[in-house]
Amino acid sequence: MSKSTARVVFTPSGRRGEVPVGVTVLDAARALGVDVDSICGGRGICGRCQVEPSSGSFAGLSVDPGNLGAVGAVEEGYRQRKGLAPGRRLSCSAVVLGDVAVEVPASSRVHKQVVRKRAEARDFRIDPVVRLYYVEVAQPSIDAPSGDLERVMAALAAQWQLAGLAAADHVVRDLQAALRSGDWAVTVAVHDEAAITAVWPGFHDTAYGVAFDVGSTTLAGHLADLATGEVLASAGTMNPQIRFGEDLMSRVSYVMARPGADAELTGVVREALDALVGELTETAGVSRTDVLEVTLVGNPIMHHLVLGYDPAPLGTAPFALATDRPVRMPAGGVGLEVNPGARLYVLPCIAGHVGADTAACILSEGPHRGEAVQLLVDVGTNAEIVLGNRDRLLAASSPTGPAFEGAQISSGQRAAPGAVERVRIDPATLEPRYRVIGSELWSDEPGFDEDVAATGVTGICGSGIIEAVAELFLAGVVTGDGVVREVPGSDRVVADGRTFAYVLRRGEPELRITQLDVRTIQLAKAALYAGSRLLMDHLGVDEVDQVRLAGAFGSHIDPKYAMILGLVPDCDLTAVSAAGNAAGMGALMALLSAADRAEIESATRTVEKIETAVEPRFQEHFVAAMGIPHSAAAYPRLRAVVEMPEVEAATAGSRRRRVTRRGV
Amino acid sequence: MSKSTARVVFTPSGRRGEVPVGVTVLDAARALGVDVDSICGGRGICGRCQVEPSSGSFAGLSVDPGNLGAVGAVEEGYRQRKGLAPGRRLSCSAVVLGDVAVEVPASSRVHKQVVRKRAEARDFRIDPVVRLYYVEVAQPSIDAPSGDLERVMAALAAQWQLAGLAAADHVVRDLQAALRSGDWAVTVAVHDEAAITAVWPGFHDTAYGVAFDVGSTTLAGHLADLATGEVLASAGTMNPQIRFGEDLMSRVSYVMARPGADAELTGVVREALDALVGELTETAGVSRTDVLEVTLVGNPIMHHLVLGYDPAPLGTAPFALATDRPVRMPAGGVGLEVNPGARLYVLPCIAGHVGADTAACILSEGPHRGEAVQLLVDVGTNAEIVLGNRDRLLAASSPTGPAFEGAQISSGQRAAPGAVERVRIDPATLEPRYRVIGSELWSDEPGFDEDVAATGVTGICGSGIIEAVAELFLAGVVTGDGVVREVPGSDRVVADGRTFAYVLRRGEPELRITQLDVRTIQLAKAALYAGSRLLMDHLGVDEVDQVRLAGAFGSHIDPKYAMILGLVPDCDLTAVSAAGNAAGMGALMALLSAADRAEIESATRTVEKIETAVEPRFQEHFVAAMGIPHSAAAYPRLRAVVEMPEVEAATAGSRRRRVTRRGV
Repeated sequence: MSKSTARVVFTPSGRRGEVPVGVTVLDAARALGVDVDSICGGRGICGRCQVEPSSGSFAGLSVDPGNLGAVGAVEEGYRQRKGLAPGRRLSCSAVVLGDVAVEVPASSRVHKQVVRKRAEARDFRIDPVVRLYYVEVAQPSIDAPSGDLERVMAALAAQWQLAGLAAADHVVRDLQAALRSGDWAVTVAVHDEAAITAVWPGFHDTAYGVAFDVGSTTLAGHLADLATGEVLASAGTMNPQIRFGEDLMSRVSYVMARPGADAELTGVVREALDALVGELTETAGVSRTDVLEVTLVGNPIMHHLVLGYDPAPLGTAPFALATDRPVRMPAGGVGLEVNPGARLYVLPCIAGHVGADTAACILSEGPHRGEAVQLLVDVGTNAEIVLGNRDRLLAASSPTGPAFEGAQISSGQRAAPGAVERVRIDPATLEPRYRVIGSELWSDEPGFDEDVAATGVTGICGSGIIEAVAELFLAGVVTGDGVVREVPGSDRVVADGRTFAYVLRRGEPELRITQLDVRTIQLAKAALYAGSRLLMDHLGVDEVDQVRLAGAFGSHIDPKYAMILGLVPDCDLTAVSAAGNAAGMGALMALLSAADRAEIESATRTVEKIETAVEPRFQEHFVAAMGIPHSAAAYPRLRAVVEMPEVEAATAGSRRRRVTRRGV
Repeated sequence: MSKSTARVVFTPSGRRGEVPVGVTVLDAARALGVDVDSICGGRGICGRCQVEPSSGSFAGLSVDPGNLGAVGAVEEGYRQRKGLAPGRRLSCSAVVLGDVAVEVPASSRVHKQVVRKRAEARDFRIDPVVRLYYVEVAQPSIDAPSGDLERVMAALAAQWQLAGLAAADHVVRDLQAALRSGDWAVTVAVHDEAAITAVWPGFHDTAYGVAFDVGSTTLAGHLADLATGEVLASAGTMNPQIRFGEDLMSRVSYVMARPGADAELTGVVREALDALVGELTETAGVSRTDVLEVTLVGNPIMHHLVLGYDPAPLGTAPFALATDRPVRMPAGGVGLEVNPGARLYVLPCIAGHVGADTAACILSEGPHRGEAVQLLVDVGTNAEIVLGNRDRLLAASSPTGPAFEGAQISSGQRAAPGAVERVRIDPATLEPRYRVIGSELWSDEPGFDEDVAATGVTGICGSGIIEAVAELFLAGVVTGDGVVREVPGSDRVVADGRTFAYVLRRGEPELRITQLDVRTIQLAKAALYAGSRLLMDHLGVDEVDQVRLAGAFGSHIDPKYAMILGLVPDCDLTAVSAAGNAAGMGALMALLSAADRAEIESATRTVEKIETAVEPRFQEHFVAAMGIPHSAAAYPRLRAVVEMPEVEAATAGSRRRRVTRRGV
């Protein structure tokens, strides 16, 4: 008499148990609670449930791949149609005939990790908000006059144990056509295990999502496969609202001066986002109707303008948000032509100046997940600052103004091809060399002029200004309290009215660093430092364990120069790093994972909001931080690796100090 | 020492208890679970919480209206502003100082009955799906940067114990404006105790709903106050789809022949419904934005066309509905310009031929509520038939064709001013007299011609045909098997080709009852009877306790003539009555009561659907029912009160029978 049960071990989960001989591996997995993906429900169509039988001995169990039985017609049909790697079996076709050990590869699991390239950041967690289910539906009968929808619901309950589902309005009509053209088999998308949101005739196995990062200057989007997490296309475009105002506050002023103008700003940004969807789907070669999920992050004003909320209350104290919770609505509600059942998820805002983009940065960089005290800085028109660890998290916005974006700087411009982004100044000769966005060459290297011929050298972006001022400080041209000194005999430092300016580039356009530019940068960096320092006071720490610089500015800036100038508090240089497009990454994480949504919602509910405008200590820190660097004792860890001019404690009035000119 | 508690009795509920001296009557009511309405939450603004203190002795308790304390400033302000009937107090201002008995009038209760004029029908039950709540909301503060929405949610939780509410998409933006223009006080509409759907600045106390009955021929709507149930306006209009086909099946054929044409039919009916909303709100003098709830009923094809579902599957077997459950969606989804948060509720359909209009008739007439076996018949293009009682309910559709609507009849027309609706024929002289819709006079009464001059006499509607054929049968002109006999010497019965016709009216237009007309009516009435009889077979009964004739046809027809002709089974004449616009009443009931929605959903889930087309017994009953009346023994109860010609059992071939000409 043959044994009536067999032992099965699933790896890597380690789940094991006895199952009746003759059941499929997929059914065995379900019985044992092992996560194995399937869209077709075990019909050998989707190929999502692939497993790899192992041989040898597993924890005392001798297993044999042959115990999975022979490859049958369904499995062979799949192999011929779509291909199946050697050693792989369809778990819905493979039958357990004896003891087996079965490896479930990550690609066959619904919930999985996807490795990110950057080592510091957490891997992507795939925990789909939308899943596809293939069902074969009873045909209507004159004897049992139930509705199409109800027969689909019955099939989902019987074949997938999905009960109590709602259906989006358009689904009823779509089902009518899909059932008939699909010969009473359809694939449905189920959102959040609660509602049918889309339907296709027959078998359908592609579902995509778009993650948007809506910046004041740039709109960026990523298109990803919701099942695998693979990013199939990325694209960016200028925010068309720029024609209503270069910076956010001028757009809010535009709206406040013109009743109804917010609808105009809302309209143009929604159009641009929809155009991005078009570009992304075209690049990836997928259909707009297969886009089922959209996430969006942005600062509070962009958040409000995209959602059609009035941004005016954000323009004046008390900077009241319309809502600080996540917004869930149909993606069509913001004008996106995607699947009519596609949902939009907008990450929560934290405060009137700290938006969903900051929430996304937190999700990506994870200060709330570790023990290390992380300072997370996102520099834009203003700077959003988050400080803390798993025990406590604080957030604030600091009024840096747009200088770090190149605005309000005499030769400044946005970070774009042609902008100076890196600057080195020989401390002996004061001769500069620089690099511009769009070229890998320094200005003193052969071929530079040809390399930048297409764009020209058009101005200095934020990171270029930072490096220029820092290098001028290191070269002794700019003093510790920010004065551009006269340098007799140098043709690089020239009179500029009653002050002096440094000529970075001669010709057309001539690029200068003026006294006013240095003062503007001093104000901006003092505000940024003061914000960080205020949060440190609240947290009760004197130093931070790591600094993450998010956003385009954070990616372009060299951490060393940020610290030389005193933008961020002292820290081991190796612990200061760019976070890249952390907001966009956070949006992508929320796109792929319901658990990540829950995590950031929980984190933002507990984050403590600090309003810099009402904190007297912010003003104290701000005034004290105006110098370069603002305190001789403030950067012991930086000074351990970078030789810097020795300066006295800076005060607004002091003019005399020792300056030692040394190279870095 | 004064007593610290007092006894309070509320009538008519009889609830009683001890409360601390000094609490308001409203708080006492809430503590004792007594239903007292309030929108303003006890601020003396809304006046919904009025009560009447009683004096004397209540169940051993000696009470004194003086124990409610003096009228204070808030209450006096309300009295001067809005008026307060003598003896009435605002329960939110009146304070319990000693033992009191308090009457809560129906108008002060959230849940209440509204008496219907027709004694047979159940009173309206008010059990609002939407309620208004006035809240005073914390102002935003720079120290506590929560969103507008979250502060409103907090106020609703604190002031109304409403937690876990969702908010419709547009509400967030509306709240921004309303909070600021309402000085941080708003009124919100909460739908189904689950979601905020609308918002007004400050105090707002009007919420309306519209109930639609979407017929193939006529669209009708009622506008009602959702709190009181009062119908403020009613209006009707022609269904503009008539230009695509007079009857339903020709409209379905139009759609089936032209891909995309269903969108055209959907568009025109939605436009007409929205125009009705305009007419209703204008007549009632209310704002479209105060319309928060819409219900809709219709036959399956109209149901599908309004909702944008494809009606084509309803045109051929197996007549599959897109959905048989109730449909809930935003009212804007069917093109109604009402409050953007207004919801649409469409009653469930029962089967491919038995629609939401029949569900509404059931809700109105309540066969499922009583012990009496009720036959509920709604005659339109086809007839929907419901039979049963609280134990068991069956439904079917019978293919009567449109003859009862005046179609396919030589002089037929729809029931409209100018149409003959009543007919009497002198059995001795065969001279007719008749009445037309729009006049109260018979054609032989003085002033008739002047009275109908405006419309003229244009044709014969369904009820007119029924009466004419029945009278011709009673007069011996039409035989028991439907032959129009030659009557020598009469100038009313004339040769008409190879058959004979009766001339009802001479002149322009001449109105005749032809042999073909009689045959058409025979077919229609046999189908109707056979359907009823089939359901009786299934239910296992030989007679019914009451017959309700719904719809326009049912309202115009004289039950006696319906039975003489054999449209419905034998029954006590006093138990046969018109149900009026039962479908419209059902839609209105569902508009005003969540409990009624639950009731009809439950009833339609259990109703047994009988498909006449596949039942051999239907054909047998149909053939047997062709005679007038179809069986000598079939109408003992009718024959007890109406003298009728004695006829043999009718068979299709029989031509000879005894006919006794007797008057009624």
